[in-house]
Amino acid sequence: MNERARLERAMRTAIALSESARGWTSPNPPVGAVILDEKGVVAGQGATQPPGGPHAEVVALRHAGLRALGGTAVVTLEPCAHHGRTPPCADALVAAGVRAVHYAVADPGPVAGGGAKALHAAGVEAEGGLLAGEVEAGPLRAWLHYARTGRPHVTWKYAATLDGRAAAADGTSRWISCPESRTEVHAVRAKADAIVVGTGTVRADDPALTARTPGGHQADHQPLRVVVGTGTVPDGARVLDAVAPTAMLRTRDPDVVLAELAERGAVDVLLEGGPRLAGGFAAAGRIDRILAFVAPALLGAGPTALGDAGVSTITEAHRWAVEGVTMSGKDVRISAVPARAGEE
Amino acid sequence: MNERARLERAMRTAIALSESARGWTSPNPPVGAVILDEKGVVAGQGATQPPGGPHAEVVALRHAGLRALGGTAVVTLEPCAHHGRTPPCADALVAAGVRAVHYAVADPGPVAGGGAKALHAAGVEAEGGLLAGEVEAGPLRAWLHYARTGRPHVTWKYAATLDGRAAAADGTSRWISCPESRTEVHAVRAKADAIVVGTGTVRADDPALTARTPGGHQADHQPLRVVVGTGTVPDGARVLDAVAPTAMLRTRDPDVVLAELAERGAVDVLLEGGPRLAGGFAAAGRIDRILAFVAPALLGAGPTALGDAGVSTITEAHRWAVEGVTMSGKDVRISAVPARAGEE
Ligand SMILES: NC(=O)c1ccc[n+]([C@@H]2O[C@H](COP(=O)([O-])OP(=O)(O)OC[C@H]3O[C@@H](n4cnc5c(N)ncnc54)[C@H](OP(=O)(O)O)[C@@H]3O)[C@@H](O)[C@H]2O)c1
Ligand SMILES: NC(=O)c1ccc[n+]([C@@H]2O[C@H](COP(=O)([O-])OP(=O)(O)OC[C@H]3O[C@@H](n4cnc5c(N)ncnc54)[C@H](OP(=O)(O)O)[C@@H]3O)[C@@H](O)[C@H]2O)c1
Repeated sequence: MNERARLERAMRTAIALSESARGWTSPNPPVGAVILDEKGVVAGQGATQPPGGPHAEVVALRHAGLRALGGTAVVTLEPCAHHGRTPPCADALVAAGVRAVHYAVADPGPVAGGGAKALHAAGVEAEGGLLAGEVEAGPLRAWLHYARTGRPHVTWKYAATLDGRAAAADGTSRWISCPESRTEVHAVRAKADAIVVGTGTVRADDPALTARTPGGHQADHQPLRVVVGTGTVPDGARVLDAVAPTAMLRTRDPDVVLAELAERGAVDVLLEGGPRLAGGFAAAGRIDRILAFVAPALLGAGPTALGDAGVSTITEAHRWAVEGVTMSGKDVRISAVPARAGEE
Repeated sequence: MNERARLERAMRTAIALSESARGWTSPNPPVGAVILDEKGVVAGQGATQPPGGPHAEVVALRHAGLRALGGTAVVTLEPCAHHGRTPPCADALVAAGVRAVHYAVADPGPVAGGGAKALHAAGVEAEGGLLAGEVEAGPLRAWLHYARTGRPHVTWKYAATLDGRAAAADGTSRWISCPESRTEVHAVRAKADAIVVGTGTVRADDPALTARTPGGHQADHQPLRVVVGTGTVPDGARVLDAVAPTAMLRTRDPDVVLAELAERGAVDVLLEGGPRLAGGFAAAGRIDRILAFVAPALLGAGPTALGDAGVSTITEAHRWAVEGVTMSGKDVRISAVPARAGEE
């Protein structure tokens, strides 16, 4: 195997490690790292530990021990160069005697950035860009958005029928989507920092908003449950139980919601509706990704998936770009991101 | 190449011929036929000609001439055994000295059926089932539905945004779907016997409802334009121009519409909306296929793709099964058929 193939294989492992840490690390990035020894053999692996714990590089270096000497580090994100709750990873890599560092994505943060420079200064090769696209659209997507904009990344997840209804005329909606889609939604929740709904959804459906395993147990990681709106929710609503923490945000302004969530360390936010709250976020341009489960069913009446988003004529439509379409059981699963200017 | 592979290859050619005849043959089926000579070499090909003209088998036999003697006929539909406007194809095959006939689908009609029996009686091998699934879901889908139920086959085609809107709040809808999708719609129209809309769509959009080529020219085949509703449409509406015939059906009953269309020889009908007319067809169970072009855009307001379809609670939802999902330019193209009992 040549050098390049070896590095790519190590990066794929690092990406899987990165992905495995998602949900546990915010507001830190879920990074994955692999240490190859002098001969290019895997000597250590690591993923970012929960806040206060060591970063991915340090975990991997501990595994590698002396084998890191003259070796190569393969990391999903540029190693940090600043003293936060833990010492800089760049220093740890230098101290371990690593010869070269390959990372996927540069750290856009004004504070943490600069690890590559520090490595160069210490005589360590440092090169970015390896499988950068996969990392940017994958495990670091939400964190990169947060690092660049200061706002948590918002995925609007909804389930609707082919004709765009989120519930029937009488408000019933269990189950619009199929078991496979519901299982995936729980897996997505278990990786999110917060799940957001409006007071209307709590009143209409009384959802638990927890992440559950296919066996019906609570997942290990529970996101913060967030209810948005100026009104109240009934005493005894399931979101008020003790299974997971819940925040009641008495506002209708998406930016107030996002600032409050950033304050609480949330980076990856799942917006689960309903239509009015989603409309508010869409109108404010605060949806960063759409994850739609379209069930092959027709209702012909009932609330639509999206309420008023400030659009009155076709030329004002919010334009998106499909990044993936797959079947999810009987449903069509569509993932979309905002269309870039010129692509509309 | 073995016998089976040779027959399948011939059937694929017959399917392509069948497909090429769609739009020209109604109320007759668009059949394709290939004649292999004694050695298995293609000797003739044919597709059903417009009503009054020869059937596919006869066209192919004429091409093959004496080479049909001792050969094999490969046909998408069981050859007919009755005297209609043309003599029975079974007789023509026997007269030409064909040794064996392989067809995909049996003729379900009480009148035309029985060709296999007549061939057997004349000492010609006749076997059905070759690539039957492809033919049933392909070029003969509409005609088989018509032969079995007596009703034209209805494809409901619509374009909507991800949130299920067929137009913006002010009624504007040009263009919800992308150029590739619009090009396909024109190709679908050019194969249909009739395009059906409600008076509301004519009043709102004044559509031409003709089939046009990507270059903007009228297609060779124009379907019958059908406007359904008890009200009137403005004098000077484009559907009233001379480019294609137009029928005004002053009813709101889908079965009256379909009976009238069957009467006029239409087998393959394209329902192009709008929401109220589509809702009426859905409520009556008279949609046989859905062809949806879902544009990655959000409107948050405006008419939904489907109006009232008689569903008031989630358990009454009309359930469908996705038979295909593909990208059509930037749009997601979903084809669906009614879910079979037990699959819901
Ligand atoms: N299929 C799905 O994926 C899905 C998901 C969720 C819900 N649903 C369905 O949606 C229906 C509930 O709809 P809904 O619209 O009432 O739910 P909602 O959007 O969850 O709640 C509406 C409430 O959200 C608050 N809100 C916060 N920000 C807002 C903003 N920017 N604009 C407007 N309101 C804002 C308002 O509360 P205050 O009035 O208290 O200020 C408003 O009354 C139920 O039938 C439920 O089943 C479906
Ligand atoms: N995106 C798309 O694919 C698409 C396609 C078509 C239209 N559109 C949009 O749809 C809007 C027009 O909506 P629409 O609902 O008025 O259009 P429509 O369904 O074409 O027309 C409604 C009319 O159809 C007649 N009708 C026939 N059978 C009916 C039945 N069973 N139930 C109810 N009405 C029946 C009624 O006419 P009478 O009142 O005369 O009896 C009714 O007023 C426009 O904005 C247009 O742009 C979008």
